[in-house]
Amino acid sequence: MKVITLLTDFGLKDTYVAQMKGVILEITRDVHIVDLSHDIIPQNVMEGAFLLYTAVPYFPRGSIHVAVVDPGVGTKRKAIIIETPVCFLVGPDNGILIPSAKLYKDFKVYEIKKDICRQSISSTFHARDVFAPAAALLAKGCSPEDIGKRIESFVDMDIEFGRKVGDRIVGKIMHIDGFGNLITNVRGETILKEKDFGSVLQLNLENKTYGARFLKSYGFGEEKELLLTIGGSGFLEISVNRGNASELLGAKVGDEIFIDLY
Amino acid sequence: MKVITLLTDFGLKDTYVAQMKGVILEITRDVHIVDLSHDIIPQNVMEGAFLLYTAVPYFPRGSIHVAVVDPGVGTKRKAIIIETPVCFLVGPDNGILIPSAKLYKDFKVYEIKKDICRQSISSTFHARDVFAPAAALLAKGCSPEDIGKRIESFVDMDIEFGRKVGDRIVGKIMHIDGFGNLITNVRGETILKEKDFGSVLQLNLENKTYGARFLKSYGFGEEKELLLTIGGSGFLEISVNRGNASELLGAKVGDEIFIDLY
Amino acid sequence: MKVITLLTDFGLKDTYVAQMKGVILEITRDVHIVDLSHDIIPQNVMEGAFLLYTAVPYFPRGSIHVAVVDPGVGTKRKAIIIETPVCFLVGPDNGILIPSAKLYKDFKVYEIKKDICRQSISSTFHARDVFAPAAALLAKGCSPEDIGKRIESFVDMDIEFGRKVGDRIVGKIMHIDGFGNLITNVRGETILKEKDFGSVLQLNLENKTYGARFLKSYGFGEEKELLLTIGGSGFLEISVNRGNASELLGAKVGDEIFIDLY
Repeated sequence: MKVITLLTDFGLKDTYVAQMKGVILEITRDVHIVDLSHDIIPQNVMEGAFLLYTAVPYFPRGSIHVAVVDPGVGTKRKAIIIETPVCFLVGPDNGILIPSAKLYKDFKVYEIKKDICRQSISSTFHARDVFAPAAALLAKGCSPEDIGKRIESFVDMDIEFGRKVGDRIVGKIMHIDGFGNLITNVRGETILKEKDFGSVLQLNLENKTYGARFLKSYGFGEEKELLLTIGGSGFLEISVNRGNASELLGAKVGDEIFIDLY
Repeated sequence: MKVITLLTDFGLKDTYVAQMKGVILEITRDVHIVDLSHDIIPQNVMEGAFLLYTAVPYFPRGSIHVAVVDPGVGTKRKAIIIETPVCFLVGPDNGILIPSAKLYKDFKVYEIKKDICRQSISSTFHARDVFAPAAALLAKGCSPEDIGKRIESFVDMDIEFGRKVGDRIVGKIMHIDGFGNLITNVRGETILKEKDFGSVLQLNLENKTYGARFLKSYGFGEEKELLLTIGGSGFLEISVNRGNASELLGAKVGDEIFIDLY
Repeated sequence: MKVITLLTDFGLKDTYVAQMKGVILEITRDVHIVDLSHDIIPQNVMEGAFLLYTAVPYFPRGSIHVAVVDPGVGTKRKAIIIETPVCFLVGPDNGILIPSAKLYKDFKVYEIKKDICRQSISSTFHARDVFAPAAALLAKGCSPEDIGKRIESFVDMDIEFGRKVGDRIVGKIMHIDGFGNLITNVRGETILKEKDFGSVLQLNLENKTYGARFLKSYGFGEEKELLLTIGGSGFLEISVNRGNASELLGAKVGDEIFIDLY
């Protein structure tokens, strides 16, 4: 049984995601379909790319990851498959798949052929009519050459990681999770090179400065303490122990953060 | 492997849907269970009927669709199975299944027999105690005659489609999706007979008039432009490109819309 | 095929739950993974314990239930497996599993061995790195002795059930469901011993008194009537027919309720 994962900005209140699953199951039943997330901020391709990038490593070899945050649906943007040594990535050619593809040295990009799509392609719902059939056919054993045409140019995207600039670490909020934790683009190793667990760090966000302990896990903090940890995907997170950092700090995705190192 | 889909107004914060799945899996493991939606407006049978009707065509032959929006649970309303040439429908006899059944020419209605239900039937949770076992038994290969009794009368329901009245198209908002798009009951063909993509239409909603371009897809609109498209299920949708039409217009399910054609 | 259920306070907007599923599917594909609920109030171990306790009986023999509401993650709290005659329970040693374990006479507790976990264990995400692998290995046929070490002491927890005190039933709100129904800790039998369906009961909540009919099901109530029923899990619920009791009464989880019996 193959694994197909789905990441979209569709939410789960509608039947959009279910329709994708119906189309997949019409082509093959020999799959596990896993919802990665359907709550990407609408049309925020970068957030989608980041969440895909952090989740892909936890899936088995051979998995097929479909990611659809697709403001250009129905226009001339291409529909692509990326083949990596470990997994397939399926989605629009707007960069969302690229950071995940770059996790692996060699990857090849294919434009999905029209004739594998559903007979009548909606102008607004390629997730169901183009990407779901492509993923299902890959799960069924089709090769990317069977269902796509190799292309050399594609829309590139990089996740810009937080970095040391002078005596500060400069980063950005990439995602706010369901607990209100602020997930940054600062890799754990970037901060661990400078500071040990237990240090108090000066965090600057939207022109306000906060002191926050850098702890190994929430459980070491006081109740309602603002703290910094390294989250499950290896990135620096700003959290409130048993509380909601997003609400406390009024932060949003895209906000810059600075951590003083002097 | 059979496919069972579940549509309810239960939400996913509770374990209600999971309990249905537990009961199904106790009877058969040889199924794919797909959540259609669990965010139907509480007790809004018409919205449930509409979403079921738009999703059912995307599922494979032989699928079993369970739909439970059931304000009459525990009263004398019947529990039914509908057999169509393509799929089974399972749910309360309150009309929710009927528009989907009418997608197919011939359909037969059966009242579910008591003895196939869980031994102790909760008065408030037939989804778990009646409908889930019925669906699982159908998935296991039971015929509707085995587990139900053919009946001739049932609660009827029709989706009233938007239509041309004089020099206007008169319609209604059936559902608001997770993007805030307003899904109407106006079929794409009804509007395409009158207007071409690219036209500016006059939309009237709650006594206000808006000009809105009728576009093939969101991607052709300007940022934050109010526009009309034909959505993935073939119905006219009112959208804001990269925005939320429901919030902008203050619209709700059930509101009437008018589109001027002169 | 084994059944693994997942209950957490992670929500579904992130990929946390999906990462757990990826790890499980890397170990075994021969499973059905069912989401019990991911909307436990953050870090509310008691609510998690209660919802697990009410859902477990509806799953087939041999199911493996993973429950992670885990404010102590990354500290010295143990990671445990509980073996009951009917199912396995996997989660942190903070009491969340215990009421479900006590549904069965004999249960044995094992501390999960480190060497079965993912090579690099995140300090904040044991659900993925410890509990998911343990559950998957049990599904694959490992015995709890293979992957754990029998222990005698563990963090205990009991669900305190509502009871008669003088001429009142004293209870507590354990959970608020998606309809806004208030699920109490008063067992159906406790109230049925005192009062028949159809009675009008005096309900006291947060120092206000309400008259409410005790009905067999919502469908017997008037529109917007405040009423008491016995919910699908056998506990007394405070509901508003076609309305939201939580909003109407301003109630929250943990609030005490009193029902006068004189």
